Amino acid sequence: MHAETLTPERILNATVDVLRRYGPNKATVVDVARELGVSHGSVYRHFASKSALLDAVAERWLAEISAPLDDVLQRQDRSVAKLRAWLECLMHTKQQRASQDPQLFATYSGLVLGLRQVTDQHVAHMIAQIERLVHEGVANAEFVVNDANATATAIWHATARFHNPLFVAAWSEPSLAAEFEAVWELMINGLLVR
Amino acid sequence: MHAETLTPERILNATVDVLRRYGPNKATVVDVARELGVSHGSVYRHFASKSALLDAVAERWLAEISAPLDDVLQRQDRSVAKLRAWLECLMHTKQQRASQDPQLFATYSGLVLGLRQVTDQHVAHMIAQIERLVHEGVANAEFVVNDANATATAIWHATARFHNPLFVAAWSEPSLAAEFEAVWELMINGLLVR
Repeated sequence: MHAETLTPERILNATVDVLRRYGPNKATVVDVARELGVSHGSVYRHFASKSALLDAVAERWLAEISAPLDDVLQRQDRSVAKLRAWLECLMHTKQQRASQDPQLFATYSGLVLGLRQVTDQHVAHMIAQIERLVHEGVANAEFVVNDANATATAIWHATARFHNPLFVAAWSEPSLAAEFEAVWELMINGLLVR
Repeated sequence: MHAETLTPERILNATVDVLRRYGPNKATVVDVARELGVSHGSVYRHFASKSALLDAVAERWLAEISAPLDDVLQRQDRSVAKLRAWLECLMHTKQQRASQDPQLFATYSGLVLGLRQVTDQHVAHMIAQIERLVHEGVANAEFVVNDANATATAIWHATARFHNPLFVAAWSEPSLAAEFEAVWELMINGLLVR
């Protein structure tokens, strides 16, 4: 197994295993190197510091979660349907990962919540996608909006219960779907041209 | 100090001190009794079990937080102004407590988050208050709403960022006020008669 080329991908996978075992505070680059059967110098050749390594793990996870959202933005459909599909895609991706492997989800989300800059960039990217949908809806004469960025920010925060890992315990509640419908209806009433 | 009468109030205060020190899992009724200089039998005379004691501590805290909200409901004002004042009162009460004594706030909120039944009752009580405001607004011809309970549930969850202790880290962010304005505008656009 040590004969395989040491790729960034393999280092990130080994880091996830180490994080799962020791958590982000106790895990070290030496643990990651040991997991791979290489020297820590070999790991540092790809990632300059533990901090760079953790950022890369968190960014890869967030990129995996947001990848299917890009496809939703490309669809030809009414903006209201695209906004609904975008939110459902985001919620389902996270909720599925949380239910399939709760401990891995807790490892990743605990890591991400502690990395302020990575989280801020991800949230800005998500709000920018919603803002694009809001602009589209205004251009289609579906939505009436004063400030598309404020509206997108509001949609992001108003739906936190359904996509923010802080609420993972609520995601297995039978009331979750009805709660989302209630929030969706309130938001969309405020957006749609009447 | 042992000469004072052993009131439920004194037991609850001592329990908070013990929780602060040991956390809800490790704290015992014996610790509380020791804190008060009484036998654990004296504590059990007021609270039948550790679980009953923790519930009472959590319920007292939540009652303190929601007490000023009752006054807002009694005001003579437009429903939109009352709903806004109710949310502000809730947010400010929690945010002030969190900033005045972060460790005490963490003790209480950690306790409450772990007590499912107490939390559910509190949330039902909060949503019932919002529902009352929504009904008033419909009666005043200020709001248009299909289902007042669903609307109240949506308002509660859509504003979680600003009152749910899970978000305590966000409460000191300079962007918080603007985020609330954005969510408020989106919600109120969906409620108001146009």
